[in-house]
Amino acid sequence: MSLLENLQWRYATKKMTGEKIPQEKIDYILEAIRLSPSSSGLQPYEILVITNLELKEKIRPIAFDQSQITDASHLLVFAAWDKYTEQRINDFFAFSNAERGLPDSATDAYRTRLITMTTTQTPEQNFAHTAKQSAIALSIAMLAAAEQKVDATPMEGFNAAALDELLGLKDKGLKSTAILALGYRDEANDWLAKLKKVRTPSELLYTHLN
Amino acid sequence: MSLLENLQWRYATKKMTGEKIPQEKIDYILEAIRLSPSSSGLQPYEILVITNLELKEKIRPIAFDQSQITDASHLLVFAAWDKYTEQRINDFFAFSNAERGLPDSATDAYRTRLITMTTTQTPEQNFAHTAKQSAIALSIAMLAAAEQKVDATPMEGFNAAALDELLGLKDKGLKSTAILALGYRDEANDWLAKLKKVRTPSELLYTHLN
Repeated sequence: MSLLENLQWRYATKKMTGEKIPQEKIDYILEAIRLSPSSSGLQPYEILVITNLELKEKIRPIAFDQSQITDASHLLVFAAWDKYTEQRINDFFAFSNAERGLPDSATDAYRTRLITMTTTQTPEQNFAHTAKQSAIALSIAMLAAAEQKVDATPMEGFNAAALDELLGLKDKGLKSTAILALGYRDEANDWLAKLKKVRTPSELLYTHLN
Repeated sequence: MSLLENLQWRYATKKMTGEKIPQEKIDYILEAIRLSPSSSGLQPYEILVITNLELKEKIRPIAFDQSQITDASHLLVFAAWDKYTEQRINDFFAFSNAERGLPDSATDAYRTRLITMTTTQTPEQNFAHTAKQSAIALSIAMLAAAEQKVDATPMEGFNAAALDELLGLKDKGLKSTAILALGYRDEANDWLAKLKKVRTPSELLYTHLN
């Protein structure tokens, strides 16, 4: 199926069956996320892959008691860097240049500009930016899941501070930005499965300047 | 090709040929963007589709003189809502409920909660959220382009205030968040085409909690 057909097929699944997703499909989705583009290639986020039932049961009340939290096979928690630091940016360029067989000084001018730009912003501005990069990765995860005929529910409706506390994210310099529940739709019991997909009409979404 | 293969194929093209993209490929990419998921389905953004050369020439100096601005076949400017308003949210639900054959009151409880939540945030918080939704759409645009073997360069490196001014976005309650240049790679003259794609290793990106 094409990307367009996969986009038509997917929806924010409200009721899941509890069925387990085969490991090779999970591996595929995680590899797609890993290949996500990001600003300057920094990938300023980490992802927690949760199958532990006890932990899912602790997350559920933090996320408005949504049933997919425990009925999902896997939960992906997207956690973006709380801020950019010189260390994080230097580590990235050291790794990237080594991978490309370049001297670490190869990107000095660009690196200096990036460090100056990011570290003179507020942590809130930094986080708005890292969170946006994590949304790109989240988007790719949804599409990779759809291609694998795995259902996915993206969630922003949770108490981020409580989730960060539960998962020990603060100590890692991370803040949760989204949960993606991965599993299989329980179509008969999902009220949203029956409703038409509604999207902004093209004439309102697009302005053509030819 | 699979999504994973398309992700391997794509890269942030630095040099484009100027070749024109067939209309059916552009239509495909725009339809994929239109089907993007977004928080509560609001799609809080608009997209400007620019082929006009004079306009591209005015944008180029605003975007650090990047050659793809004028060598691209099409420029997509992603422009997110500057803030959420009761009107915007009411318009969305009126349309969505009508499309689904539901009374406009069907979503009252959810709508009220959403209006309260968004309109008690600052405009900066609103825009961080709408910009994040536009990043999801940008991500889908990049993948749809790759599937069509169309190259794409996502750009954040531009003077957003100047671009908003040039395109008259402020009067529409919009702020630019990204430019996506769509075209074809000039591989022989693109320094990035020759470099290895570098991504965060899985063991640093993922924490498995089983």
